[in-house]
Amino acid sequence: MPIPIDTDPSVTELAERTRQLVRDVVIPVETETGGRVHDGPEKVRRRLQDAAREAGLLAPHVGREWGGLGLNTLGQAVVFEEAGYSLLGPLALNIAAPDEGNMHLLEKVATQEQKRRYLAPLAAGDIRSCFAMTEPAPGAGSDPSALTTTATPVPGGWRIDGRKWFISGARGAGFAICMARTSGAPGDRGGATMFLVDTDRPGMTIERDIDTLDEGLFAGHSEIVFDGCVVGDDQVLGEVDRGFEYAQVRLAPARLTHCMRWLGLARRAQDIALERASTREAFGSRLAELGMVQQQLADSEIDIAASRALIHDTARVLDSGARGAQESAIAKTFVAEAVGRVVDRSVQICGALGISSDVPLSRFLREVRAFRIYDGPSETHRWAIARRAVSRHARRREETAT
Amino acid sequence: MPIPIDTDPSVTELAERTRQLVRDVVIPVETETGGRVHDGPEKVRRRLQDAAREAGLLAPHVGREWGGLGLNTLGQAVVFEEAGYSLLGPLALNIAAPDEGNMHLLEKVATQEQKRRYLAPLAAGDIRSCFAMTEPAPGAGSDPSALTTTATPVPGGWRIDGRKWFISGARGAGFAICMARTSGAPGDRGGATMFLVDTDRPGMTIERDIDTLDEGLFAGHSEIVFDGCVVGDDQVLGEVDRGFEYAQVRLAPARLTHCMRWLGLARRAQDIALERASTREAFGSRLAELGMVQQQLADSEIDIAASRALIHDTARVLDSGARGAQESAIAKTFVAEAVGRVVDRSVQICGALGISSDVPLSRFLREVRAFRIYDGPSETHRWAIARRAVSRHARRREETAT
Amino acid sequence: MPIPIDTDPSVTELAERTRQLVRDVVIPVETETGGRVHDGPEKVRRRLQDAAREAGLLAPHVGREWGGLGLNTLGQAVVFEEAGYSLLGPLALNIAAPDEGNMHLLEKVATQEQKRRYLAPLAAGDIRSCFAMTEPAPGAGSDPSALTTTATPVPGGWRIDGRKWFISGARGAGFAICMARTSGAPGDRGGATMFLVDTDRPGMTIERDIDTLDEGLFAGHSEIVFDGCVVGDDQVLGEVDRGFEYAQVRLAPARLTHCMRWLGLARRAQDIALERASTREAFGSRLAELGMVQQQLADSEIDIAASRALIHDTARVLDSGARGAQESAIAKTFVAEAVGRVVDRSVQICGALGISSDVPLSRFLREVRAFRIYDGPSETHRWAIARRAVSRHARRREETAT
Amino acid sequence: MPIPIDTDPSVTELAERTRQLVRDVVIPVETETGGRVHDGPEKVRRRLQDAAREAGLLAPHVGREWGGLGLNTLGQAVVFEEAGYSLLGPLALNIAAPDEGNMHLLEKVATQEQKRRYLAPLAAGDIRSCFAMTEPAPGAGSDPSALTTTATPVPGGWRIDGRKWFISGARGAGFAICMARTSGAPGDRGGATMFLVDTDRPGMTIERDIDTLDEGLFAGHSEIVFDGCVVGDDQVLGEVDRGFEYAQVRLAPARLTHCMRWLGLARRAQDIALERASTREAFGSRLAELGMVQQQLADSEIDIAASRALIHDTARVLDSGARGAQESAIAKTFVAEAVGRVVDRSVQICGALGISSDVPLSRFLREVRAFRIYDGPSETHRWAIARRAVSRHARRREETAT
Repeated sequence: MPIPIDTDPSVTELAERTRQLVRDVVIPVETETGGRVHDGPEKVRRRLQDAAREAGLLAPHVGREWGGLGLNTLGQAVVFEEAGYSLLGPLALNIAAPDEGNMHLLEKVATQEQKRRYLAPLAAGDIRSCFAMTEPAPGAGSDPSALTTTATPVPGGWRIDGRKWFISGARGAGFAICMARTSGAPGDRGGATMFLVDTDRPGMTIERDIDTLDEGLFAGHSEIVFDGCVVGDDQVLGEVDRGFEYAQVRLAPARLTHCMRWLGLARRAQDIALERASTREAFGSRLAELGMVQQQLADSEIDIAASRALIHDTARVLDSGARGAQESAIAKTFVAEAVGRVVDRSVQICGALGISSDVPLSRFLREVRAFRIYDGPSETHRWAIARRAVSRHARRREETAT
Repeated sequence: MPIPIDTDPSVTELAERTRQLVRDVVIPVETETGGRVHDGPEKVRRRLQDAAREAGLLAPHVGREWGGLGLNTLGQAVVFEEAGYSLLGPLALNIAAPDEGNMHLLEKVATQEQKRRYLAPLAAGDIRSCFAMTEPAPGAGSDPSALTTTATPVPGGWRIDGRKWFISGARGAGFAICMARTSGAPGDRGGATMFLVDTDRPGMTIERDIDTLDEGLFAGHSEIVFDGCVVGDDQVLGEVDRGFEYAQVRLAPARLTHCMRWLGLARRAQDIALERASTREAFGSRLAELGMVQQQLADSEIDIAASRALIHDTARVLDSGARGAQESAIAKTFVAEAVGRVVDRSVQICGALGISSDVPLSRFLREVRAFRIYDGPSETHRWAIARRAVSRHARRREETAT
Repeated sequence: MPIPIDTDPSVTELAERTRQLVRDVVIPVETETGGRVHDGPEKVRRRLQDAAREAGLLAPHVGREWGGLGLNTLGQAVVFEEAGYSLLGPLALNIAAPDEGNMHLLEKVATQEQKRRYLAPLAAGDIRSCFAMTEPAPGAGSDPSALTTTATPVPGGWRIDGRKWFISGARGAGFAICMARTSGAPGDRGGATMFLVDTDRPGMTIERDIDTLDEGLFAGHSEIVFDGCVVGDDQVLGEVDRGFEYAQVRLAPARLTHCMRWLGLARRAQDIALERASTREAFGSRLAELGMVQQQLADSEIDIAASRALIHDTARVLDSGARGAQESAIAKTFVAEAVGRVVDRSVQICGALGISSDVPLSRFLREVRAFRIYDGPSETHRWAIARRAVSRHARRREETAT
Repeated sequence: MPIPIDTDPSVTELAERTRQLVRDVVIPVETETGGRVHDGPEKVRRRLQDAAREAGLLAPHVGREWGGLGLNTLGQAVVFEEAGYSLLGPLALNIAAPDEGNMHLLEKVATQEQKRRYLAPLAAGDIRSCFAMTEPAPGAGSDPSALTTTATPVPGGWRIDGRKWFISGARGAGFAICMARTSGAPGDRGGATMFLVDTDRPGMTIERDIDTLDEGLFAGHSEIVFDGCVVGDDQVLGEVDRGFEYAQVRLAPARLTHCMRWLGLARRAQDIALERASTREAFGSRLAELGMVQQQLADSEIDIAASRALIHDTARVLDSGARGAQESAIAKTFVAEAVGRVVDRSVQICGALGISSDVPLSRFLREVRAFRIYDGPSETHRWAIARRAVSRHARRREETAT
């Protein structure tokens, strides 16, 4: 059931409006662009966000104070899934990564002044942003504690030095949230700080745009060098040395919003497969009447339903105020794999057509593959999930013993 | 999260009390009996149900009017999972198949007089019951419309003739709910009627107890012959020729309560694996620190969480009054397979110990295997899930077209 | 074991020479071109094939009479796997699809005159060819009997009319082998004939080059229209109305040579993953020491070994003169899926790097996906495999009965 | 293809004779006993082995000098698969674990005198044997180096102390091959020695028979205590301190013969499923015509073919004189899982019947589950497979570098 029984009617209405926007405005643009926006075409972004603004759908996850609609996490789950039905839907609603997570983080951690300067224009779609954490080997990758970029105190501020890569949306962004080590050494889990860095700041250079399998994230992924980039003390986001903690504030919900968006795309892939199965004949019957096709359709229905149930469940946990680390890790791991399976099955059902660009499925296949890797590869999450389960078991044993 | 955030505190309390009963009373009995109750040991049943009655936990799904606690489906999900933590927990709470589903059906369909005569003593644990639908080939199996048992009108009642098998709990039951064809021919989906048949009725014979892989369902599974078994008109359950419809009334929730109970057992299996992984060393480290063991533990956490999310989701749908055919089919298919995977991984983590009866895992392995077959094999559910998805797609296309 | 124990030393030596050519000449060209040769760059082809010719490696599967080395199927398995280690290796050795299968077919079925005119220059790399069988819906796809393209007798020859798509290598080919219906109606399994059509023949038009997920097959895949294309009687390949039979002559070995080539690519992907796992550190140890990475590496070793064993086994069957329909269908289905899994795991082990074009893995991921679809999608093969198993069982029952 | 193209006709003939013996003599006994022989019924063993002896099929893997037929490994693959078609076939041919592996080890390592005393009567079926290596935690399990049982020199011999469990066939065996530490400490990989211990020796006690999921191995699995058990120097098998090395001599082929036997059982399970699918109707067609059933049948055909290809491939490697550690580990891991899948699918295709003892499938399900654990659990093999692949990669890198 796409929408939980107990959903507020206002959220249902938002979802319906999003559905229409996606169908009438966004999918035509997706078709036109082939879903490739790694070169960050501003005209396309403006056109989509203007339409969403007009429909009253821009940045629905941001507080009303900062121009959004104040949706809680469960409400986001419903609306983001609808937006995700097109690769470009999240861009239209201004809820795409990395901006969406950055808004969330700023709302939680930034000063009022920082919010005015960065959050407000970001939510309005006037500027874009990026999140500069990941580093090439041997730096911070799936193990964030390997962080090697440093920020050294200088009079009145900090000097940042280091190399970042796979920084999504960097090209054309107005500012970056940069994670740098302010104490400790690579391998330590402490001592990181987040900085707000205007991208026209001297010493910050986009060295190259990385050619990747996916091409549907606005402005793509870049490699960035910080070489003696100096920022003022007022550019520290939150407190010094609490960067890893804030990363968690950003990551658990960001993981889940990824799931919401990709779930929408999985549903789209399944709809394309259902359309094909309903109309194409082979061996004397419609594909939809062949058992092996039915099995694939059913498995995708199951994957979609289980993904949605885990997302809604985790959303309820986050809305209750809990951190939801285990729940969001489980949801991320499952959904990333399930979405990949759904798209893959849809390609298979469409046969040769499925790997041609006559339908967008092979585009989707390319886009979703990365989701098993970014925001923590499945292996890292499984490691963390197992460790938490073992700890929980140890606590219970102690409780029982006493 | 085992218990939804928005659960009523009274339900949470019931779940906690169930947890204690299972730990203190039920698991010791499970160990003593080896979980084998196919021969229906009345002493064991009395002992367990007496303890549950004393704890105020008997038949919690039945309305208060008939001696239960009136739990809704979501409440059942929480409590049944706790009971399912032991193979014999459901028997203790009187929520085991087939009695639990029969109580549900009687509450929905029976006359007041029938409820007094059958439901009340059933809920109290004074008698047991069975549900006589499945037939040996070429009769009603995964395709119920193949029903061959007939009920022919005789003065004042009906004469039932036919053969049923895999009738769980028949041996020692006080009555059977028997499905028989009252019109149409095998292959038609119409024309079945349900009858309440007292098991001491002449013409109803238990021909044999079937030796099966599972041995943990009280009184096992029998093959029954109806040979000129005559019952009165007042023994018709509901209305004539509406049997298939009532079967659906019984089946969707019964499928889900199976999921709830087996989920509890999967959690138990995972706890045994966690215990083993936390204490056993190999290759110089605890099993819990080895990546391949962590992967198995994590996959089981994911399977358990996704199963629970689907169960709770479907429970909310059923509690809203919807039929939930698609949701319960999806939940049943996923959970039956997930539970099997969890138990299998737990066995693997325990190694040779896992296949010995020194731990109960190989018992669990035998018990859960059948769940992918009964109440509709996974293939039949997948077929139905795909068909419903195709129909949904066709409806949407029509809506869009107009 | 890459090379069977009982391999002829001359074959081992050929394989070694191929390995060197691939390492020294082909992989550098692959890197330079990014493995994208859908636009059919003749310069690249000439360069690669000149090097192979010089190394005495051109068209090793073709009889010595026609310029090849006369390798039997098992010998091909050994050499083709080495060539497949690079996406462009098969092009270099002139053993890429569709030319390789066409040479095989011509050698089996063509007249001496046809061999002189088509096979000899094809084997020498002077011209290329295509195989025009697949049609857009509702024509011949996974069900060849749906063939709609027709060939009508005209004085002295045949007039061909119809539409074909996903015709690999058509752009720039010297001739096409075109399958057309000469009797019966779509849905009949009989009545097809193969024609040799020079591509400069009036009435044959390449309508478009299809944009596809894969980009590594020389000259890509085109959509072709035959509109009153007239060919002489001497252009009939083999006999009239035996086209479906010849398609089988081509398909079983062609399926297997696909497997050989893709197996080489899987090995390459695994080597890239092994390199990464051996050098990259995370969480304080080399990736190669982490259990979940070991599991992936081991699973890929298993997939590679099982693929190779099935290929060699099937090669032995074909070399014995048997048709090997079941064996080759099993090999194709397993290998297509196994190769996809191996490449996918290698991407996962490489993380973000794996989806960047800094390593060729995401290119490989795109290329191998199609293999589960072309030459019969996995579902069609599974259907055929099951049917043959059921028939075998029926034959055995009859034998036992008598 | 069950039998390799290049098989010696004498082996083909042996296989055919085995097939007949299994069909005419062994399966009837299997049915009669329900395949349960954990209590080691001597009458059953005598009856089966007498029939095999009469058919000239006893101990075909043992050299002719010692009463066998001198089959090489590939020949064993063909014959053992046929024997494995029934759970009791290997017992009949005297090629069941652990005797089969013990004969192999004795033939390789024992002195002539030891062979006369132990190998000859073992091959003739006059006595049985066991292999006492595995220990309860924290002793030798999947990590053999954890060996804790000790052998201390005493005048003229050795005194053995320790505890062993899951010792198959111990009850009623004539002698045990016992592995004990003669130098080093638990955790060291060196310092083990093998001893031939007559089971009537004072100080060796069978403490209990372990109740396990499987029940089809003759005489089951026991827990044994050595408490001051003294044996003479002539009871040392091979040389002192070379026990771990001999364990490898035994294990690689023993792993493979397990695969051969279980493959036969998988084929039997598939035949039962084919029979059911060919005769049972549902939803208006034979099961064999339903796509999801076809998919399961096809997947089992694929699993069986890939298992057999890996077994034959590894057999060729072993017959060439190579150790085949990687090949046999890959075969064991794949086949153990594949066989489990095949039996599981067959159960599913048979539905409720499949979990009843009306067909032997649920018996098979119980028997094959343990194969993923014994002779090294899949995880241990995967760990070793990955490590060997990483080492191979390192060697190649060095070769290329120089």
